[in-house]
Amino acid sequence: MAEIEMIEYECELRVRYADTDAMGIVYYSKYLEYFEVARTEMLRACGLPYAELESMGFYLPVMDASIKYYRGARYDDMLRVRVSMPSNPSPRLSISYRVMDAATNELLAEGTTTLAFVDAKTGKPTRPPERYRNALREWNNKTSTA
Amino acid sequence: MAEIEMIEYECELRVRYADTDAMGIVYYSKYLEYFEVARTEMLRACGLPYAELESMGFYLPVMDASIKYYRGARYDDMLRVRVSMPSNPSPRLSISYRVMDAATNELLAEGTTTLAFVDAKTGKPTRPPERYRNALREWNNKTSTA
Amino acid sequence: MAEIEMIEYECELRVRYADTDAMGIVYYSKYLEYFEVARTEMLRACGLPYAELESMGFYLPVMDASIKYYRGARYDDMLRVRVSMPSNPSPRLSISYRVMDAATNELLAEGTTTLAFVDAKTGKPTRPPERYRNALREWNNKTSTA
Amino acid sequence: MAEIEMIEYECELRVRYADTDAMGIVYYSKYLEYFEVARTEMLRACGLPYAELESMGFYLPVMDASIKYYRGARYDDMLRVRVSMPSNPSPRLSISYRVMDAATNELLAEGTTTLAFVDAKTGKPTRPPERYRNALREWNNKTSTA
Repeated sequence: MAEIEMIEYECELRVRYADTDAMGIVYYSKYLEYFEVARTEMLRACGLPYAELESMGFYLPVMDASIKYYRGARYDDMLRVRVSMPSNPSPRLSISYRVMDAATNELLAEGTTTLAFVDAKTGKPTRPPERYRNALREWNNKTSTA
Repeated sequence: MAEIEMIEYECELRVRYADTDAMGIVYYSKYLEYFEVARTEMLRACGLPYAELESMGFYLPVMDASIKYYRGARYDDMLRVRVSMPSNPSPRLSISYRVMDAATNELLAEGTTTLAFVDAKTGKPTRPPERYRNALREWNNKTSTA
Repeated sequence: MAEIEMIEYECELRVRYADTDAMGIVYYSKYLEYFEVARTEMLRACGLPYAELESMGFYLPVMDASIKYYRGARYDDMLRVRVSMPSNPSPRLSISYRVMDAATNELLAEGTTTLAFVDAKTGKPTRPPERYRNALREWNNKTSTA
Repeated sequence: MAEIEMIEYECELRVRYADTDAMGIVYYSKYLEYFEVARTEMLRACGLPYAELESMGFYLPVMDASIKYYRGARYDDMLRVRVSMPSNPSPRLSISYRVMDAATNELLAEGTTTLAFVDAKTGKPTRPPERYRNALREWNNKTSTA
């Protein structure tokens, strides 16, 4: 089957006081940190913690990011971040995010980021490590047989 | 003359150690803070400090943001942020940013944000204050006669 | 019994990439955010979420903070923050913190903060609300009968 | 002459919206960032930019920090940070800070940090580089002849 499955993951996190600003809502750049938390946990769930990628000599810098804000989250709100990414082993990871109020399910923000594998020493773009491609393959097998 | 002039402004800021991450470059969300610094100074240069808008009962929350990263800035780099926005008094401010290495002029990142006037009490979208429209009008007059 | 019991609480949190700096360790100010997370959860566990205190018209600004750093935490480390505070209903909360590597139990940092009840409207110091003193009293009763 | 001169430096910085929290004042950990900006500029003024120290193979991690808060700074406030340190070439830098409202000279916060030279490769404490001791010596000579 030629179709590319989507890897999907969901995690919860609580808004810190440090995240808020004088408008009483979460400062707009903080959502990119929430995105980071969510994709980190997604990669871990795929069997490939990002910290391990780094120790193998790879970095995954962000190439671009975009975000739309619908309603500002507030201090102590519990948020649910839904993150998804195509499961093909591309050198670029196109990741989508939806941030929801965990209590009401209201959509607060949504966005995308593109990450690229680079060699940690040279900083140059590089192919994803074999270990990463295997992790995605396994994930796909598990999903299609399920 | 029907053409809408662009307001342009440029400011410099230095990368703090706090801005960097374990890759040795500026963490990706920090550029949105740099954008904030630049648009704050642009509004001040237009004769309308953002703090004054707040004391008049307005907020200018960000509705969306997008950014492309070309090369990571490093600790202690001096950055130049060029910011521009159409001078028509719309309830939505469409602002563009270019972040450059001030020493080499290399483009490091560029992006956009949309901000909208809301009533600070109700949180509802609202017309920009008279004071803001006047400031833009004056800015336009000064520019066209120059 | 005249002795003042200590309220103790422990929570875990994971180091984000956003928390690290170019030395490869957590930036020194971030521990104060970890302190905030820990005391927020301690207050919640005492039956008095901080968000509720705010909605009752109180703020709890920090009056002072101190911290010693023993070893830098790294990206993706799971940290355990142990927080404690005397259970007497003082207008000043003297809170102590110990940050440990959750995997090895190694002490990474320890510190203190003092917080004070202020009236959210006037910003002036004020007595803690009845609701807060009751929460501590209940906590003490539960503990001494246990 | 046995007396140790104090190196003193002063810089100004403006409070960003990103620095504020839902209380409408600067979040308490942000002052440690302001401290970093001030000591960075003090070292640069001494003829020894911190970035240069790093490129020579040294890190200067923070060993401890303490701070007292007197009044919360607000968005767009211009702050003056006065920083001072003994000019003897110790492996530990004991630095003091005073944060003032630049407009009124009111003291908002004051604190201290201790930094220590470590070898960037091993992470072990080490003697300050010759280059650093020379910079302080020159600074002292300039000051005493002045």
